[in-house]
Amino acid sequence: MQRRKFITAGLVTGSAALAAACGKKEEEKEQSPAPAVRKKYSWRMATTWPKDFPGLGIGANKLAKYITDMSDGELEVTVYGAGEIVPAFESFDAVSKGTVEMGHGAAYYWKGKSPATQFFAAVPFGLTAQEMNAWIYYGGGQELWDELYASFNLKPFLAGNTGVQMGGWFNREINSLDDMKGLKMRMPGLGGEVIGALGATPKALPGGEIFTSLQSGAIDATEWVGPYNDMAFGLYKAAKYYYYPGWHEPGTALETFVNKQAYDALPKHLQHVVATAAQAANMDMLSEFVARNGSALDTLISEHGVILKRFPDEVMKALKTTSEEVVNSVAEKDTASQKVYSAFTDFRKKVAGWTDLSETPYSQARNL
Amino acid sequence: MQRRKFITAGLVTGSAALAAACGKKEEEKEQSPAPAVRKKYSWRMATTWPKDFPGLGIGANKLAKYITDMSDGELEVTVYGAGEIVPAFESFDAVSKGTVEMGHGAAYYWKGKSPATQFFAAVPFGLTAQEMNAWIYYGGGQELWDELYASFNLKPFLAGNTGVQMGGWFNREINSLDDMKGLKMRMPGLGGEVIGALGATPKALPGGEIFTSLQSGAIDATEWVGPYNDMAFGLYKAAKYYYYPGWHEPGTALETFVNKQAYDALPKHLQHVVATAAQAANMDMLSEFVARNGSALDTLISEHGVILKRFPDEVMKALKTTSEEVVNSVAEKDTASQKVYSAFTDFRKKVAGWTDLSETPYSQARNL
Repeated sequence: MQRRKFITAGLVTGSAALAAACGKKEEEKEQSPAPAVRKKYSWRMATTWPKDFPGLGIGANKLAKYITDMSDGELEVTVYGAGEIVPAFESFDAVSKGTVEMGHGAAYYWKGKSPATQFFAAVPFGLTAQEMNAWIYYGGGQELWDELYASFNLKPFLAGNTGVQMGGWFNREINSLDDMKGLKMRMPGLGGEVIGALGATPKALPGGEIFTSLQSGAIDATEWVGPYNDMAFGLYKAAKYYYYPGWHEPGTALETFVNKQAYDALPKHLQHVVATAAQAANMDMLSEFVARNGSALDTLISEHGVILKRFPDEVMKALKTTSEEVVNSVAEKDTASQKVYSAFTDFRKKVAGWTDLSETPYSQARNL
Repeated sequence: MQRRKFITAGLVTGSAALAAACGKKEEEKEQSPAPAVRKKYSWRMATTWPKDFPGLGIGANKLAKYITDMSDGELEVTVYGAGEIVPAFESFDAVSKGTVEMGHGAAYYWKGKSPATQFFAAVPFGLTAQEMNAWIYYGGGQELWDELYASFNLKPFLAGNTGVQMGGWFNREINSLDDMKGLKMRMPGLGGEVIGALGATPKALPGGEIFTSLQSGAIDATEWVGPYNDMAFGLYKAAKYYYYPGWHEPGTALETFVNKQAYDALPKHLQHVVATAAQAANMDMLSEFVARNGSALDTLISEHGVILKRFPDEVMKALKTTSEEVVNSVAEKDTASQKVYSAFTDFRKKVAGWTDLSETPYSQARNL
């Protein structure tokens, strides 16, 4: 029904125009609107991941596919891996300047731009995935993030989460705080600063050097992601012990960031497509990690004989206290960080109170 | 650029048609395709919630808005509360028959149609929200759900989650298993069967009768949802103790179900819009519950002096054992339930192993 009406309208407009040229009356002109035509947009997404990297790169692909599929190609997004258009850590600038329209990464990569970015990715002893989503979508986090990224000409969205990461692969047992001393461990970012303060030697090796460094003894330990990514990386072949939990990255959020002019130039419905696709991609990636981590963990234990170890309470307490100090000192550096940190800690206090009555005691009860 | 091309094409087609009528040559006819016209779809969503009900009804509204906004009104969804088109529990049949195109509810409402539906909503000692999402999206759950609902002419999607619920409001302390005996508690569904097996008297009161029944002493206790919904309901005025955790509904999934013919008749991109909007709505509702539960819990304790209590281990152990028995007996009843239950428990085993190394020890460490 509707379809016929639209086609007729399209024909009539043209007919009326030519009718005038034929010398006929334009009697139908007023009542016949032009057909709904849609401008097409082609966007490029520069990611910080190797093309098709499990979990993270696949998540970027998924986001692009959601946007392209839902808009019926009206907004077509093509994904580029790290180095294909710009190197991984130049994607922020490339999107900011408009070289490409969007990017995909993790906000802590941009701490050189502003230390406050780190609160939108992962903070030692910070928020879990579920808590982070609650903060960003319903706790005022998005507004703070928008404000921070607007100064870089960007509009940010959550676009994935790894969930709680693992503590790492170790060739030395950690039975007390003394065992942290002199430990050579691959751990970038805030986590590295924390273990450094406890006497370890943090190393910031790129992914490609981790396995051989661990195997040769150049490092004693490394963190990576979780069972799914770590198994694919073969880390169980280079280390004896697999420690938990990942206190340094308790729910690492992935992001997409869009050039503000490109975003503002979209018609409203395509802005909705981008925002909602990112939200769905956020759900998708976390679900993939949780499902695949469960299976991979099962395989690591039953087929590869991995030895699981929990960090002793004494070590965790020290890591927690030191983390607070390190994060505090980061937050003191500038007003943007102070503002975000204050909101973040206020939200964490309330939401952790809820987690402590819900997820945690429930999971404990399931094991009774 | 593209825009002008499309408009020209539209005009030319009409022009050529009239040109023929004018006796002119149709030379442009072959090279001028018809304008891209889009058929419009108007859908009605019959929900099981009172219109605009906090959390759940608002989640249905959000889903409809995502679909309508992203499709630029090409697929316009109008939400109806319980009773506006059909009573709450007739929405499943109404969508199945095509009276309306889609519905919004919780799968355990349809246990009368098939007991297997319950595994797609909440199971005592079953999956948390994050685990349920992992099962449905990446653990084979969606395929089983599709198969089950296809026999009712429906296509189901996850569309929200309450997260772990609270154990309930009590006017009697639960210090041992003996205190469960004779307890008159409002608790519908599988949870009710479980406490019944432990000597309590489960009641299936509708929402509107809970407050006065609790206040008058007609019941000793009630479960409802969590801090956000329970505070709005004023339950803290009618009961002394607020128990946790909600073992009976550890992550209640909400759903949308679509009439199969209506879904199949949509162009591909609108099918993507419906599926992706549901996934984003799933993320949105859980995030809202987590954020608002955190704040409400804070208010319940600091302003309303609510006394929080954790179920004793002895009681939780008995609830767990009895839950397994009750759920087992449900699963034995028919082949569909057996098939789903087997997949569900296999997934739960693996994913719970992962939760026990990630979310749970992390949250515990945060409290050291």
